Amino acid sequence: MLPVVVHPPGMDSRASFPVTPLTKVSRLPARASYDRADAYAILDEGLVAAVGFVDGEQPFVIPMAYARLGDALVLHAASTSRFQRVLASGARLCVTVMLVDGIVLARSAFHHSMNYRSVVVLGSAAELTAEPEKLAALGSLLEHALPGRSAACRPPSAVELKATRVFALPLVEVSVKRRAGGPLDDAEDLDSPYWAGVLPFTTRPGIPEPDPAHPPRGREPGGLASYDRATFTRAQQEKPR
Amino acid sequence: MLPVVVHPPGMDSRASFPVTPLTKVSRLPARASYDRADAYAILDEGLVAAVGFVDGEQPFVIPMAYARLGDALVLHAASTSRFQRVLASGARLCVTVMLVDGIVLARSAFHHSMNYRSVVVLGSAAELTAEPEKLAALGSLLEHALPGRSAACRPPSAVELKATRVFALPLVEVSVKRRAGGPLDDAEDLDSPYWAGVLPFTTRPGIPEPDPAHPPRGREPGGLASYDRATFTRAQQEKPR
Repeated sequence: MLPVVVHPPGMDSRASFPVTPLTKVSRLPARASYDRADAYAILDEGLVAAVGFVDGEQPFVIPMAYARLGDALVLHAASTSRFQRVLASGARLCVTVMLVDGIVLARSAFHHSMNYRSVVVLGSAAELTAEPEKLAALGSLLEHALPGRSAACRPPSAVELKATRVFALPLVEVSVKRRAGGPLDDAEDLDSPYWAGVLPFTTRPGIPEPDPAHPPRGREPGGLASYDRATFTRAQQEKPR
Repeated sequence: MLPVVVHPPGMDSRASFPVTPLTKVSRLPARASYDRADAYAILDEGLVAAVGFVDGEQPFVIPMAYARLGDALVLHAASTSRFQRVLASGARLCVTVMLVDGIVLARSAFHHSMNYRSVVVLGSAAELTAEPEKLAALGSLLEHALPGRSAACRPPSAVELKATRVFALPLVEVSVKRRAGGPLDDAEDLDSPYWAGVLPFTTRPGIPEPDPAHPPRGREPGGLASYDRATFTRAQQEKPR
């Protein structure tokens, strides 16, 4: 359904991302990965990204919807926003997606931790101006939130398209970091009288709430009750690329 | 239980944060708030922050544990990490906490949205070097993850304390942004044949997993089964400050 439209020059589809001075994970490198499949699984499961940019000496981190479309991340912004000016300037960005899987409770205060999976994407975005590319990228934002949704709503009008700028950030400078498993206490603490283990988390959908102001005429989309982002990820991974 | 230790010069406890050129929300200002109670409720409910800093022209956004201690955010870093050098330099930071409450499915592609609550904190952090302050701040990180935990594990040793640097970011330059409620479709779309509404999310604890490598001697902490960060928030709000 989604065309693979975005392959900026220099892209390739090698299994691993090149490790650069900027993307190399220096702290706890054993938890790092530069594997494309690892990164895409996390990006496809995440819903919202923390997008970092710089204005003068001040960093800003703004929560934002995103989608992966082929080997790029899609971002969009209102044509009147500060953020579209940042994107259009080609400024360096950092887009971070994090999934929190659990709290790691250790016997020692020091070894408490989190189980998580995160992806950090660095680079500059390029605007998508051709209408078919722009429509496909906007559609990918809806598909990312709910598969099938882009065909189950009114498409953007010419005015709406003009009110939105759409950008692609190539997935080239990418690193993954994650932690899984139980606490890693020091040997001398193992007999101490404290509980140690992991409290895992899961995010689940609640009951869908039809528009209270104007009851919708259409039927509730299938799949809302079983909405599970980890499942979407597996479905994405199984698609031919 | 938590001492209120961190009041950098210039702090106050007014009900609203001052609106500055950097903290003013320009995009969709109706969704903004500068109310201290709003911000603290979100900060107390969140578990992980996206911490932004700048290195040259490159922004970095790193997921990180944090806690609110009085009118400051506590951050910590290994004494050997790049991040502790950034913090210690007094560099400008952006710490963003976001809670995703649901997906807003509108009749038009254009009006799709998310329900969310987010806080953006700007500023520079100051190191806590006095041992009682440092211990209290490290304790607050555990209390933030699981109330009562700082008294239910081995406290940091002198070596562990030395291996960690602890910083406080004053809650002065703060803005809140949030969206709640149903879709806001255009009048001409209200009769279109599409479903519209909200799919809400909740994050819930799974079954606690005792350390599989070394079965713990202590009892499982109370409250894991009913772990609910929104409840913690209400408890924090009810504490005298």
